[in-house]
Amino acid sequence: MSEVAVVPETILDNGQGVIDFDVYFEMNEPPANLPEFEEKLSAFVEYHKATNNKVVFITSGGTTVPLENQTVRFIDNFSNGNRGATSAEYFLEAGYAVVFMHRQNSVLPYHRHYTHSNLGFLDYFEAKEDGSVQVCPQYATKMYQTLVKYQEAKKSNRILMLDFVTLPDYLFKLQSGTKILARLENRAMYYLAAAVSDFFIPSTKMAEHKIQSRDGGLTLTLDQVPKFLKPLVSHWASKGLIVSFKLETDTTLLVPKARQALTRYGHQVVIGNMLKTRKQTVTLITQHSQKVLALTKEQMNHDVEIESLIIPQLVQIHQNWIASGDTE
Amino acid sequence: MSEVAVVPETILDNGQGVIDFDVYFEMNEPPANLPEFEEKLSAFVEYHKATNNKVVFITSGGTTVPLENQTVRFIDNFSNGNRGATSAEYFLEAGYAVVFMHRQNSVLPYHRHYTHSNLGFLDYFEAKEDGSVQVCPQYATKMYQTLVKYQEAKKSNRILMLDFVTLPDYLFKLQSGTKILARLENRAMYYLAAAVSDFFIPSTKMAEHKIQSRDGGLTLTLDQVPKFLKPLVSHWASKGLIVSFKLETDTTLLVPKARQALTRYGHQVVIGNMLKTRKQTVTLITQHSQKVLALTKEQMNHDVEIESLIIPQLVQIHQNWIASGDTE
Repeated sequence: MSEVAVVPETILDNGQGVIDFDVYFEMNEPPANLPEFEEKLSAFVEYHKATNNKVVFITSGGTTVPLENQTVRFIDNFSNGNRGATSAEYFLEAGYAVVFMHRQNSVLPYHRHYTHSNLGFLDYFEAKEDGSVQVCPQYATKMYQTLVKYQEAKKSNRILMLDFVTLPDYLFKLQSGTKILARLENRAMYYLAAAVSDFFIPSTKMAEHKIQSRDGGLTLTLDQVPKFLKPLVSHWASKGLIVSFKLETDTTLLVPKARQALTRYGHQVVIGNMLKTRKQTVTLITQHSQKVLALTKEQMNHDVEIESLIIPQLVQIHQNWIASGDTE
Repeated sequence: MSEVAVVPETILDNGQGVIDFDVYFEMNEPPANLPEFEEKLSAFVEYHKATNNKVVFITSGGTTVPLENQTVRFIDNFSNGNRGATSAEYFLEAGYAVVFMHRQNSVLPYHRHYTHSNLGFLDYFEAKEDGSVQVCPQYATKMYQTLVKYQEAKKSNRILMLDFVTLPDYLFKLQSGTKILARLENRAMYYLAAAVSDFFIPSTKMAEHKIQSRDGGLTLTLDQVPKFLKPLVSHWASKGLIVSFKLETDTTLLVPKARQALTRYGHQVVIGNMLKTRKQTVTLITQHSQKVLALTKEQMNHDVEIESLIIPQLVQIHQNWIASGDTE
């Protein structure tokens, strides 16, 4: 993030202590690779518009908030990106084209079966006497099947990998990306699984907040990030089906908070999940309904993934949305 | 990190605004897997003590500082772990046994050639018609050579991978690990390449500092981390050869700051490097000497790694240290 001209203190405050999203974009520099991002995404969207495919825009992984201009330290949001990467595979199976906008080095669809585990890359292979590298027998069948699915998705141009690192990087690409997807109107779905920072240090304040030790301690003052779901739903992608996530630790708050979000932003679906059970059960909440999806004991024993229950539900809701402009 | 009994404010301050390292250990809970860490490391060290091998203890990657007890947000130090992982390979080539204490999911020796790049795991392979997975021809030769080296290191029990995530996780393992390595006396080298946080939120303060929005903003107050090089050099590993790193952005400060560290902590070697040129040039500073190591243009064109120059120098210094108790 480069420094920008000093913005008067007054515009940092919209009366509720949080800046407006347009002020955020004025105060921050867009990422250097934004034109390349837009070019790739445009080509992908035009291709699928011509073939009338449904496209899902998935965000996945956590954003970072730089604490210094020469960034060595940052605040990170914990998220490996498992939800997004797993969901991408089930969307592809359901016939969707997938834009996978993910945190750099987070979990990726298909690759995920072999990364971020206790095994390193080379642990899956053995060196043969003829000088070749072979997959260890116990991994061979599944790796072949996974590779075939991945290559099929690539060959049919149905997966586009795009990445981000910092919060401004994510937000500029979210705005730009959803506006490009909007060309598909109601045939686009937005599946916002990324863990986005709530707080940031504005570039304009960053110089004075550069980390230094004073009397042994450090004080950081952060501003709240404006709610980007608002302009996304109202302007950037108003015709698409928009799915957001709500992660809670108190069960009783899950549905009320999800309903509050639907009312506040006016979008179509919230997927509510609890921190501790997010891989076993979720609640799908729309303006008119709510539905608990949960894996049975037997499904868990067979490593069935909760996303294999979520995605078919969303595909049906999207079908309704395209047909009638409603989720039911 | 679980909560501990409230510590009186007074012991948070040693007169210079920074707590003592022993107070830090009293205030924080050791990681749950510390006994397992110690058991594995002890067995490894005893094995190499019996065979009279030299062992290097490498720390690599960045530590995280949790901002909440139910950790979703944390402060991270940027470091992929490239320096540590690359160095490990050259130490193995020089005949050392390597303890590789790294940040979870950071770059690993040998595996590093195939991770954290623009290619995903499956991009290195192709699915053959006979149902097998094969390495793409352009990667085959190098992958075979890398795999053979990796498997040789494992087969001869010369590499031990141990990981950490948070700052307290790292510090407890650093203390425990260096004390175990100390059984090898001067045949142990400590190569401290990890990027360790300077600031932390004590567990005892963490409840009140749990992230919440107030008037749209957030204020975090962090304490300075005590300097652990001091007890490491004086007590935990006093007979070993200790190498620390200094990363600077101002060239003129590099050597003076390195000398200051050698004087302050009394260890043997500082490797000074600049943020922007750290892959091309470093300065090796001992109590009596300094030496610039730099790649030539031609070496850079041939992808020679700076660690291939650093490690032989350290091996020589360690040889002197074992022979005479001095670095020259």
